[in-house]
Amino acid sequence: MSPSAIVGESTSELLRSGITHELEKTISNGHTGDDALAPLDASLLQTKLTTSPREVPGPNDPAIGEQKTCTDHMILVRWTVEHGWDTPQLQPYGPLTLMPTASCLHYATECFEGMKLYRGFDGKLRLFRPNLNAARMLKSANRIALPAFDSAELQKLVVALCARDGAKWLPKSRPGSFLYIRPTMIGSDAALGVQRPKEALLYIILACFPSFDEKPSAGPTSKPQGMKLLASKDDMVRAWPGGFGFAKVGANYGPSLVAQGEARQRGYDQILWLFGDDCTVTEAGASNFFVVWKTREGKVQLRTAPLEGKIILDGVTRRSILEMARQRLSNGWEEGGLEPLEVVEEKFTMGDVVAAHDEGRLLEAFAAGTAFFVSPVGEIHFRGTDLEIPLGEGSIGRYTGVIKAALKGIMYGKEKHEWGHVVAEVDA
Amino acid sequence: MSPSAIVGESTSELLRSGITHELEKTISNGHTGDDALAPLDASLLQTKLTTSPREVPGPNDPAIGEQKTCTDHMILVRWTVEHGWDTPQLQPYGPLTLMPTASCLHYATECFEGMKLYRGFDGKLRLFRPNLNAARMLKSANRIALPAFDSAELQKLVVALCARDGAKWLPKSRPGSFLYIRPTMIGSDAALGVQRPKEALLYIILACFPSFDEKPSAGPTSKPQGMKLLASKDDMVRAWPGGFGFAKVGANYGPSLVAQGEARQRGYDQILWLFGDDCTVTEAGASNFFVVWKTREGKVQLRTAPLEGKIILDGVTRRSILEMARQRLSNGWEEGGLEPLEVVEEKFTMGDVVAAHDEGRLLEAFAAGTAFFVSPVGEIHFRGTDLEIPLGEGSIGRYTGVIKAALKGIMYGKEKHEWGHVVAEVDA
Repeated sequence: MSPSAIVGESTSELLRSGITHELEKTISNGHTGDDALAPLDASLLQTKLTTSPREVPGPNDPAIGEQKTCTDHMILVRWTVEHGWDTPQLQPYGPLTLMPTASCLHYATECFEGMKLYRGFDGKLRLFRPNLNAARMLKSANRIALPAFDSAELQKLVVALCARDGAKWLPKSRPGSFLYIRPTMIGSDAALGVQRPKEALLYIILACFPSFDEKPSAGPTSKPQGMKLLASKDDMVRAWPGGFGFAKVGANYGPSLVAQGEARQRGYDQILWLFGDDCTVTEAGASNFFVVWKTREGKVQLRTAPLEGKIILDGVTRRSILEMARQRLSNGWEEGGLEPLEVVEEKFTMGDVVAAHDEGRLLEAFAAGTAFFVSPVGEIHFRGTDLEIPLGEGSIGRYTGVIKAALKGIMYGKEKHEWGHVVAEVDA
Repeated sequence: MSPSAIVGESTSELLRSGITHELEKTISNGHTGDDALAPLDASLLQTKLTTSPREVPGPNDPAIGEQKTCTDHMILVRWTVEHGWDTPQLQPYGPLTLMPTASCLHYATECFEGMKLYRGFDGKLRLFRPNLNAARMLKSANRIALPAFDSAELQKLVVALCARDGAKWLPKSRPGSFLYIRPTMIGSDAALGVQRPKEALLYIILACFPSFDEKPSAGPTSKPQGMKLLASKDDMVRAWPGGFGFAKVGANYGPSLVAQGEARQRGYDQILWLFGDDCTVTEAGASNFFVVWKTREGKVQLRTAPLEGKIILDGVTRRSILEMARQRLSNGWEEGGLEPLEVVEEKFTMGDVVAAHDEGRLLEAFAAGTAFFVSPVGEIHFRGTDLEIPLGEGSIGRYTGVIKAALKGIMYGKEKHEWGHVVAEVDA
């Protein structure tokens, strides 16, 4: 399947469900047709620039680690069940005002996306497959009873904010840097009834974010370390069939923080979420999880959990890794001395991982997502035992390294590729 | 087990976990002991009264149905990981200000309680078992990685707000009326990191709420109707063992709204949430669910799902019904002509309900919770079939009616009982 085929298919599926949702709203409010509700329309964007621009933190500023610093502007769009989408506003970044009864504060009527804006080595600003994030945001909104929209319009709004703040906040003097983009939608309806929100707020912010994919070395002379994962206990489940683990809704995150806090306290970076009595491997923290192992038949295989069952997130990085590996590594890579890679989205269990480890067949493991990008995993703690996973030279496995470098090349403009979406910036 | 034994046990358990949580925070922030963190302390409450008091809506004002109107004041308490709980503030009701990065808007770090303030027929204001709600709020906060507190202090704050606004908003001229109380806690930390919030906001509001337990009749001459429930489909599951179905966290509500919206569109009031391949009956909407049936052995049995597995809410109304029925109905009630009632908290399935219906053994069914109180169920739609459930004279089953009347008597001061907690009001 080509990337575009995948995109096309899911977008149309998403739009169908989006339209159903919109119609349902329309009907339930006594309107007679779609015409009564204003669609999300990026072309109407109104701009009010800040009069008190702030300073961009330096690359080593501790503020970046705190994930609190946002750029000068944000985009806000209000929605009501009576009128649909209001005029999008690009305005100075600042606090939101919500009534204490707001739906999102009680019933978690909220969803979001995670994307990045990259300053390329060619001096250009790029997004990575933004259409996939916009389409997934619609899917999440549908699952959490928030209003539908044309995902192409959301993408245009993301681009507009990146264009406005990119030049200043990702200076050309810092190629290889990025900003984190957080499109968010919340139910803002000031009513305590447990019901679909009748008002919502879509907003987009850009935040200064640290790199998580290179864990600092333990000391000045040692190598960078891999992530350490703690396998989840039986009494803590992240997601389940018929639930909402596939959607980027707030309800997937808060409930995971207790287990995650415990992992951190015990010296692990993230939870490896298992599911069911057979300990099926699903996700690592809020990222997808991959292994590279030799099958008993001797094939080198890249394996990750499948999307069926809808308990794992349909990650953009996940999808890109699978497509990239199928296209470029399934016949091997002679120059790099890599054997052909079999790429498989199929269920596997901790028992399979332990067996591969014990039989010396476990070659590499990594977590993949927008925030963590491609992060090698060096250890998994499961039922009292620490499984060491080889990290290889440069503290990254060979297959993992090739995949990561290829994606990075596209993100930062070293390779021209349809996945890299250049943003025309407004001069700072 | 006596009510007080139940309360005592769970409170101490909750406090233990609360203290663990607090200690964990302390340790993780490099403090050397508990002393460094201020506890929640209701005795410090500072009061700033509104200068623009609003009008109390009349009993039939449509604003009440909208669940948007709150009283003149609210209580706010800020918490930070560095300092613990700040001074509680009773202040004019109004909007909250949150940064767009606030934890609760992205990761559903939020929990709440639902309670009521009753204007008794004896002219007094009462809460119903407020200690149970305060203890459960602590349990929910622990599950969603929000800070711990002494639940007795939360109860005092609830009482303080009720005392302040009760006299005006529940006038003595309207005995039998109530306000809905919503204690809420949200992670207000303005940081995008997926982690335990370092700042939180606890607030309490009082809202004008409609009565849900008496569904209006279809026409002027017809009887009140029972609730109509739509059994959940296999692809929509509310909660899972190891999840958080037992906690009153936002993450249990938003994800249920799509199914609930579909139920409403199809003419049903709520979803009857089933679990597993055997269609175990769990909850009705956000309420607990009870049946009264004759067993094949000929006993009259009140049955509801057990708390084990932690997938259903430990409802205060649920618990009170079970205790009340055990105390007053297990030997029957001669005056009312009621046979002895066996009270059972055990798993049952839709298959059991269908069989009881088909064999003429299904006597009554009802949903129970704070908002819906005790609401008779007249119909369940399951796999293409509508099961009619007898509603009895007065549109309420005989056992349901006795239980409801007994609880109502305590809430509105017709019966003096330890569950009724009188609030000394400040004159309006």
